[in-house]
Amino acid sequence: MFRTQTCGALRIANVGEKPTLAGWVQRTRKMGGMTFVDVRDRYGMTQLVFNQDVNPELCEVANKLGREFVIQVTGEVAERSNKNANMETGDIEILVTELIILNESKTPPFTIEDNTDGGDDIRMKYRYLDLRRNSVRYNMELRHRIAFETRRYLDQMSFMEVETPVLIGSTPEGARDFVVPSRMNPGQFYALPQSPQLFKQLLMVSGFDRYFQIVKCFRDEDLRADRQPEFTQIDCEMSFVNQEDVLQIFEGMMKHLFKFVKDIDFAESFPRMTWADAMKYYGSDKPDIRFDMKFVELKEEVSGRNFVVFDSAPYVAGICAKGCAVYTRKQLDELTDFIKRPQIGGKGLIYIRCEAEGQYKSSVDKFYSNEDLKVIATKFNAEPGDLILIMSGETRQTQKALCELRLEVGARLGLRDKNVFAPLWVIDFPLFEYDAETDRYYAMHHPFTSPMPEDIHLLATDKGAVRSNAYDMVVNGVELGGGSIRIHDSALQNEMFKHLGFTPEKAEAQFGFLMSAFQYGAPPHGGLAFGLDRLVSLFAGLDSIRDCIAFPKNNSGRDVMMDAPSVLDNEQLVELNIKLDLQKQVTKVDL
Amino acid sequence: MFRTQTCGALRIANVGEKPTLAGWVQRTRKMGGMTFVDVRDRYGMTQLVFNQDVNPELCEVANKLGREFVIQVTGEVAERSNKNANMETGDIEILVTELIILNESKTPPFTIEDNTDGGDDIRMKYRYLDLRRNSVRYNMELRHRIAFETRRYLDQMSFMEVETPVLIGSTPEGARDFVVPSRMNPGQFYALPQSPQLFKQLLMVSGFDRYFQIVKCFRDEDLRADRQPEFTQIDCEMSFVNQEDVLQIFEGMMKHLFKFVKDIDFAESFPRMTWADAMKYYGSDKPDIRFDMKFVELKEEVSGRNFVVFDSAPYVAGICAKGCAVYTRKQLDELTDFIKRPQIGGKGLIYIRCEAEGQYKSSVDKFYSNEDLKVIATKFNAEPGDLILIMSGETRQTQKALCELRLEVGARLGLRDKNVFAPLWVIDFPLFEYDAETDRYYAMHHPFTSPMPEDIHLLATDKGAVRSNAYDMVVNGVELGGGSIRIHDSALQNEMFKHLGFTPEKAEAQFGFLMSAFQYGAPPHGGLAFGLDRLVSLFAGLDSIRDCIAFPKNNSGRDVMMDAPSVLDNEQLVELNIKLDLQKQVTKVDL
Repeated sequence: MFRTQTCGALRIANVGEKPTLAGWVQRTRKMGGMTFVDVRDRYGMTQLVFNQDVNPELCEVANKLGREFVIQVTGEVAERSNKNANMETGDIEILVTELIILNESKTPPFTIEDNTDGGDDIRMKYRYLDLRRNSVRYNMELRHRIAFETRRYLDQMSFMEVETPVLIGSTPEGARDFVVPSRMNPGQFYALPQSPQLFKQLLMVSGFDRYFQIVKCFRDEDLRADRQPEFTQIDCEMSFVNQEDVLQIFEGMMKHLFKFVKDIDFAESFPRMTWADAMKYYGSDKPDIRFDMKFVELKEEVSGRNFVVFDSAPYVAGICAKGCAVYTRKQLDELTDFIKRPQIGGKGLIYIRCEAEGQYKSSVDKFYSNEDLKVIATKFNAEPGDLILIMSGETRQTQKALCELRLEVGARLGLRDKNVFAPLWVIDFPLFEYDAETDRYYAMHHPFTSPMPEDIHLLATDKGAVRSNAYDMVVNGVELGGGSIRIHDSALQNEMFKHLGFTPEKAEAQFGFLMSAFQYGAPPHGGLAFGLDRLVSLFAGLDSIRDCIAFPKNNSGRDVMMDAPSVLDNEQLVELNIKLDLQKQVTKVDL
Repeated sequence: MFRTQTCGALRIANVGEKPTLAGWVQRTRKMGGMTFVDVRDRYGMTQLVFNQDVNPELCEVANKLGREFVIQVTGEVAERSNKNANMETGDIEILVTELIILNESKTPPFTIEDNTDGGDDIRMKYRYLDLRRNSVRYNMELRHRIAFETRRYLDQMSFMEVETPVLIGSTPEGARDFVVPSRMNPGQFYALPQSPQLFKQLLMVSGFDRYFQIVKCFRDEDLRADRQPEFTQIDCEMSFVNQEDVLQIFEGMMKHLFKFVKDIDFAESFPRMTWADAMKYYGSDKPDIRFDMKFVELKEEVSGRNFVVFDSAPYVAGICAKGCAVYTRKQLDELTDFIKRPQIGGKGLIYIRCEAEGQYKSSVDKFYSNEDLKVIATKFNAEPGDLILIMSGETRQTQKALCELRLEVGARLGLRDKNVFAPLWVIDFPLFEYDAETDRYYAMHHPFTSPMPEDIHLLATDKGAVRSNAYDMVVNGVELGGGSIRIHDSALQNEMFKHLGFTPEKAEAQFGFLMSAFQYGAPPHGGLAFGLDRLVSLFAGLDSIRDCIAFPKNNSGRDVMMDAPSVLDNEQLVELNIKLDLQKQVTKVDL
């Protein structure tokens, strides 16, 4: 036994005891004949005291301790004269009588503090030291807690965790698969799963009734800022359910997590919003409803006043920023610059300042009378002091830009507090998504999503209008998860494949074994999947999922700590029946 | 809502209620004007009754139900006149008033019964139907329960589950890695982890203190009967511990699992046995101690009687089979044939029958007098009616063969009851293992295992005698898990690398980043890993791990249900910067 207590355990009640602690040296301070050492472990920090007068040899050893040395100490717990209310152990200190250096440490390349002096790159290279920082380790503890409470809730609800395989078959459609050459089956490859979708539906055919799995999934995509090639899903599926049953169970799961992880009680049901309303009022399928500031559509009100920008736009809408009439020219220019950024793509921004009662000041005064502006302001329920911001253009594009503007203004107004959580179900998603480039409809979720029964008659005539039994769980503008009621009827599934442009042969090649399975008594079923990384980020108040992953990869998919991926020995390639065939000119030059 | 109850819920107290159930048709029986249908789900089975006289149309529909049709029924719960004590719902039946066929089913290729008529191959091809069988699904429920209770125990003990990456760097030593070409890093490959060993040690350097993970691991090995290319470990590591601390925690975990999963209380501590004793008395590092039948070494007693087989053998030992003196010639021949099988490699078997008090009958009577045999029998504490079986030869080889014989005899005597569990810690493993072929010592566990301090002085002079702080958990002759106290001191680790024949460059190339990490304050640490698949098999009383895996692969590493692995499109290969390079003549001919 290396310790009798952890470094976070001792309190005033322990005064007089003689514990043994072990941990890392956080800092040492010499004051007169006394040396103070803070010793740290996962559980906390304790102050050690060495007295030159009492034991000069021991004090000498203590004076030579470097940061991050690993030590073991024994001594008597004493009340501090100078208490530290910021430390849980701040009422006491240990008068050390024995000190053993268990391991030395080189000086770490950055400080092991919440606010470290290390930049991103060096922290990732020395991730094992970065993880020593309390602020980083806290995210991992939170992740453990969330995963554990998820399992506890689902177990209580009779869900079984079933491990589905990681080495599976490649499916040509969807995102790109990572593949694994099979040595035993020369010329053939496994794929790593993008999700266990097919397997969980098979488990429903197997009568497992309620399945879940917290599971790694893999997508070989070009990595954007907040994507990782491997990510973790809370994957769930249920049989003999309709949409309402699924929403009830997983609303219960979210409430359980809020309660047992964040100590937040949600007494009320989560609000629900149709996808159509989400787009209409927030310009997004994942609205942040921590604040209101809904879109108001103005096409009718602004037309016919010879303002060609509005007259020529199919869509005109705005938001009302409470109390922002005082925004300066500079602030308004900042907002205009914001929406004109290429990734947002707004063309321009019109404002109306609501001044004294009934008085308005606008950037389009020459087209609109004070009375015109009053009509508009009334639609927003705008009050004196408010600022109305209006955008126009092609509908979807403008909604998207206005959504970004709304979020930006919300942030500037302090309406997006990370400690406030506003969950929302978005329901009634469209079944299909039209892609102009290929002039084809694609499944918005996946080809197994069931259409709403009342819309089935529109499948042939008006695909875009068909709604699905699909739903997303959104919190604070983050899509945490989503799912659908699946098609369990082979005939309807075949019809869907037809509408999605699959030939029977192609459908058979891709989904044949699932379709075969469905012929042996598939129950009605549905489910959803949550992104665990996002869920942890949200609960931790982080901006990136990277900080809640113990060993993340960078944007090139590299682990800079391990220096992976790396080249293989040629013998390994020979055994796998493959050889390199480098395509890129730049790489050839490099070689 | 498709149901008010499951098919396993209704009891005599529910008589008069009008529930709705949903499930699969197990069987239908027509008796006179009545039709009986058993409807099944994961939770149980309920008898439905349709009465020709009461509702002829409904009865007509019921008569057409096929096996495995998915149905929804509503009706009144009634007490059965003919109760079935073998069914939990056997006191009641449902007088059905509504019947909806939710889905039809083709006739399944084998019966969905505990004792199915389906062979292994067809059951694997239609695994989703095989999983419908109660006996198979039970193993998955058990697996869920074991994983859940493992997490519950470890969480209580302050262990944090941390997900380590699946896409990592390849390590050239050890078993063969599965590799994944990186599209974004042309010519480079990730490897899938054989275990999270390096990462868990890094997490100890990070101060995580107590880590665990239930995690998929991968080995590209030629598959023997009971191996899978992907398997699941309960992987654990702790800081500031010695061997005793680790054994206490994980003995606690096993007791927790026995209690909460199998309802078996282990009041006593698990026995411990040194590796040396395990080899001496059981000829195995994983002895089955459900029964005694220890080896007795006889070299001294049998020497010098002109029996050249024994005289020339360095090792002679035997076991005593209680009450087996009655074994016939045929039975003894069976045992001789058993030990002569090539995988056992025994040369021959000598027997001594203990007949009436002090009288012996042996296959080597001409070399040994009755008095000689009595001396031998006394060493076994053999009583009249017992049978002594003796083997001789090279020590390790003979021990191994005698171990197999002991297990066989134990099985014949019914001493290996699957419902009896005999856990055991095997400790004090040798640090090194000598390989005659390469004339080199290898680490028996892995290069990070710490030597016992009192044996360190033997490192240079007598490697074979150095014991390690390594331990295995063995239950009923199955090695469920094992681990060690690791080396946390860089100097000792470098010395170990030297003794294992690593040049400093090779050690750096393979373990460089771990060795770097160890220079920044590595705490003393140790841990172990359990094989979840084996643990579930053991608890389920199965002979193979395959039956406790939802979607296992066959001995060629194929998933016959999905037909994976499979060939890739050429474009995929181009994107990955690789091409096929088939090595095997036979495959070239096939193409």
